[in-house]
Amino acid sequence: MSQKSAGPEILKMIELIGKLPGLGPRSARRAALHLLKRKDQLLMPLADALADAGNRIEQCRTCGNYDTLQPCAVCQNTGRDDSVICVVEDVPDLWALERASAFRGRYHVLGGVLSPLDGVEPEDLTIGMLVDRIKGGEVKEVIFALSATLDGQITVDYVRDQLEGLDVTTTRLAQGVPHGGELDHLDEGTLAAAMRSRR
Amino acid sequence: MSQKSAGPEILKMIELIGKLPGLGPRSARRAALHLLKRKDQLLMPLADALADAGNRIEQCRTCGNYDTLQPCAVCQNTGRDDSVICVVEDVPDLWALERASAFRGRYHVLGGVLSPLDGVEPEDLTIGMLVDRIKGGEVKEVIFALSATLDGQITVDYVRDQLEGLDVTTTRLAQGVPHGGELDHLDEGTLAAAMRSRR
Repeated sequence: MSQKSAGPEILKMIELIGKLPGLGPRSARRAALHLLKRKDQLLMPLADALADAGNRIEQCRTCGNYDTLQPCAVCQNTGRDDSVICVVEDVPDLWALERASAFRGRYHVLGGVLSPLDGVEPEDLTIGMLVDRIKGGEVKEVIFALSATLDGQITVDYVRDQLEGLDVTTTRLAQGVPHGGELDHLDEGTLAAAMRSRR
Repeated sequence: MSQKSAGPEILKMIELIGKLPGLGPRSARRAALHLLKRKDQLLMPLADALADAGNRIEQCRTCGNYDTLQPCAVCQNTGRDDSVICVVEDVPDLWALERASAFRGRYHVLGGVLSPLDGVEPEDLTIGMLVDRIKGGEVKEVIFALSATLDGQITVDYVRDQLEGLDVTTTRLAQGVPHGGELDHLDEGTLAAAMRSRR
């Protein structure tokens, strides 16, 4: 953009908004204008919310969740089951399981999955921290809630190897037909898995 | 999202990000996580840039552009031609024309186009301010750089009626603007060509 038409403040704002996932230069300009037109209702509240989040939210040193508490509210909640850890790739997966009220144990955020092709090695993930948590002795079951992809399977296999000799059961999320899903729309892999684990 | 898994600070941030155009709840969560993972490189700089923009940028009371200067840098620039005003719907159109270096006169941001169907009336736009600027006497040509839509044409016709009796030529952007096309979507070459062959 010409320096003559928009000042450095607008250019800076557009540049930073354009770094959000899914926003290109054009949608960043649209978003910037949307914000400037709603200065009191949106722009300033968003600036405050971001500053507040940046100053107060940190990653839980136990499980990897984001929260203002250290350890996070999920880890501090005494009503949850200490004997089960659900292993997820990233924080939104944890949020999704919580929205579904699908689980009442503890979580562990791996920070991704192993990917030989993308160069993601075991030391890039929090696998060592997970093994240490399980060595604590209270955990009886580890549930792998990872993507049903080759990299996800490689990760499950690797972590299982690391847990060899520890008194812990490992499970995976069941694969099958999603709630409300139409058979016609599902891929063959999902259908085959759903058929195999029919009950 | 369950209040147990994410604190109010994260929920607030996700809610506000979700109000940006083109971002739904899921992409807002992704963007929030993206920001939290890049606190120093992105989240805090964005919070600062938004606060800075909110505190310093205002709409130019002459032309409607956004800038920290009042009147804006385009209006203050003594190297530009006072005898031509280019009328645009909104600020990104002005930015697009500036990126194309297609025009060296002044601008006027209408704030939209007349739309009988959507209830946009002349008093919702800055048509009165435009007429006042032209009554100042220096302006010899008004270029309508509005979308090539029915509403755009209705707006041109209406403003031309308001300029009846004033010593001013009105032109429109020429071939190059596709029928039904929006300015902000066009490449710089097309915009520059359309500006050259205005009639």
